Amino acid sequence: MGISILGTHHTKFGRLNKTLYDLIIESGRGAIEDAGIEAKDIDSIWVGNLSGGGFNNQEHIAPFTMNIHKDLRFTPATHVENACASGSAAIECAKQAIESGNSKIALVIGVEKMNDLDTKGVTKVLAMSSYWPDEGSKGITFPGLFAEYAKGYMKHYNYSLDKLRAILAKISAKNHTNAVENPLAQMPLKITAEEILNKPDEKNPIVYDPLRLFDCSLVTDGAAALVLTTSEIAKSIKNEVVEIAALSHTTDYLSIFKRSNYELTAGKLAVKKAFKKAGITLDDLDFAEVHDCFTINELLSYEALGIAPDGEGYRALDEGIVYPEGKLPVNLSGGLKAKGHPVGATGVSMAVLATRQLLGKAIGIQAKDAEIGLTFNVGGSAASNYALVFKRTK
Amino acid sequence: MGISILGTHHTKFGRLNKTLYDLIIESGRGAIEDAGIEAKDIDSIWVGNLSGGGFNNQEHIAPFTMNIHKDLRFTPATHVENACASGSAAIECAKQAIESGNSKIALVIGVEKMNDLDTKGVTKVLAMSSYWPDEGSKGITFPGLFAEYAKGYMKHYNYSLDKLRAILAKISAKNHTNAVENPLAQMPLKITAEEILNKPDEKNPIVYDPLRLFDCSLVTDGAAALVLTTSEIAKSIKNEVVEIAALSHTTDYLSIFKRSNYELTAGKLAVKKAFKKAGITLDDLDFAEVHDCFTINELLSYEALGIAPDGEGYRALDEGIVYPEGKLPVNLSGGLKAKGHPVGATGVSMAVLATRQLLGKAIGIQAKDAEIGLTFNVGGSAASNYALVFKRTK
Repeated sequence: MGISILGTHHTKFGRLNKTLYDLIIESGRGAIEDAGIEAKDIDSIWVGNLSGGGFNNQEHIAPFTMNIHKDLRFTPATHVENACASGSAAIECAKQAIESGNSKIALVIGVEKMNDLDTKGVTKVLAMSSYWPDEGSKGITFPGLFAEYAKGYMKHYNYSLDKLRAILAKISAKNHTNAVENPLAQMPLKITAEEILNKPDEKNPIVYDPLRLFDCSLVTDGAAALVLTTSEIAKSIKNEVVEIAALSHTTDYLSIFKRSNYELTAGKLAVKKAFKKAGITLDDLDFAEVHDCFTINELLSYEALGIAPDGEGYRALDEGIVYPEGKLPVNLSGGLKAKGHPVGATGVSMAVLATRQLLGKAIGIQAKDAEIGLTFNVGGSAASNYALVFKRTK
Repeated sequence: MGISILGTHHTKFGRLNKTLYDLIIESGRGAIEDAGIEAKDIDSIWVGNLSGGGFNNQEHIAPFTMNIHKDLRFTPATHVENACASGSAAIECAKQAIESGNSKIALVIGVEKMNDLDTKGVTKVLAMSSYWPDEGSKGITFPGLFAEYAKGYMKHYNYSLDKLRAILAKISAKNHTNAVENPLAQMPLKITAEEILNKPDEKNPIVYDPLRLFDCSLVTDGAAALVLTTSEIAKSIKNEVVEIAALSHTTDYLSIFKRSNYELTAGKLAVKKAFKKAGITLDDLDFAEVHDCFTINELLSYEALGIAPDGEGYRALDEGIVYPEGKLPVNLSGGLKAKGHPVGATGVSMAVLATRQLLGKAIGIQAKDAEIGLTFNVGGSAASNYALVFKRTK
């Protein structure tokens, strides 16, 4: 059974004067309206959110969705959490709810309101998605965990710090610059890699050596929502719909110290499985939105997708492949780095962006004649991994 | 497609010298062993947990399940949260994963380690499952929310405090006494309603008027786990298996102040739907495990199940129906009141208890020739509601 996207909504990302509750209502209503259905048509609701408890003192957020519309009252609603991949986790649950016959139409909301806390508070809440006894409790924050990847990559492939920094600056510059076209992005900024590398330390300080400010994604408030249904129902309502051709989910050990620190082992597997399920190869992809929570993770994602061989991810940049005019543009939206990264919303945001690209209604830069796109969303230091393939169908 | 239970495990409930991680490993390994399968046979893992973040600084707990067995590495694992109904939420997801064809065999773990915090800390974390802006942030704790039900019930049905207290004491005494036979229970205690009512205030203090200490469930560490699969596969492995004949899930407004405070409106609907799906009536039930997080909620559950008419739940006790020798024993295990209530584990614990009853291997008091049992699990102040019907099949 094919599963398709009937409606989408994407809020502004940034430091917003909106509550967690406002974001749920705005995105939920937006997606229902875009789907062209009534609230009463929805059979189940799935909410991706990392830590309403930590950020907003609000666990058990799913029932709040009853406030989206009075006709949703009594609809089963469930909160799903897999750290920064919570949004994709919610999509997976909604998809299975439909495939199992328990739901015909499902609403998925990804949401996070991070700016209720100060930076120190945010860092602490995020660190709880590491393996706390060996990582968070030892003072290793998420910049610290991804610094482990940067250090592991340098060591394994014998890269100098300068060589790696030059690559990461290109990723940061590309994503900030792409975001200029995205009206919903948090930090649009026309900038070059040289400008980033030439910044004085105080303008681009080390966050966790070797990662600097321009390597880190943002602290963001925002939400995104999808209405999913069977492809059959979707096609009966809309002329052109986008199908989830594959969703694959792999899990690795929670602690980075139990696994490889120079590649996304489980992420590679997720991508491989997604390609197989969708019956496609890398060459079929017209764009990808990948999880650049830190620039090093976009580099690792190039290799996980197979855009460049292991240890040579830089070629994706140097050969122009991942730029807007390239063969496989990556993060046309600006990515987590510049669009923003409301952690529990990110997987849904990626799916909304992919859908809109495929419908020719991109939020930001439009890929030309895009027919197939991929989203790659990770949770924690890539312990949770999701790869989704989206296809335009008629 | 029928979904059956292939294996179960239930840890000791109480104040344990075990970590959140220990409990996951113990229950996961126990259920796999009981199922008679290999870890490599498991296709997906679903973890019910309310607030690893709040209680243990650990969000993103699902990937920790990779530590249960090396062959689980890369298996998709997902954390599901609907407050004190998180365990049932995880069962629902696992069931849909199988029904959708994405998994053949799924592992479900419900777990909570509450005693890392002191009472004040626990109360705060739990209060985050209320609607924080109008409830938790105003100092209304969970005893406070269920006190609203007690007060609402007295007002709506014109009960005196003494009359209500006498009923609630019977529920408390029944459950504590039932727990005497349950080797895994936290607070087995042979006691009568009279003894509870005659306790001096300092031995049974008011927690949140009118609820007293003997009306409140416990602060518990514990876990329970299930292996689920299709009934076809289950029957190919075991002679006698227990099937999930129905699972229904309803959601109501998060805040009790937006809904009725003298009945479980959405809970009633969940039970009604479960009976219909399973093709049974109340008369077919041989036992029930219901959500007595506070004694008032067991009283309301009698009415939600239809054991007694609205406003006359006391008859379930006075007519002997819900006692071990009655027509429909409720909480033979001792319930949340006496077995203990590790919040995210409770729904899975109930399912394990029901399964073991139906296999004639009860943990605690065995219902005679039980063929059909029900579990009724709620989250928050009954915003999330799950009713499951279990049937023994050959």
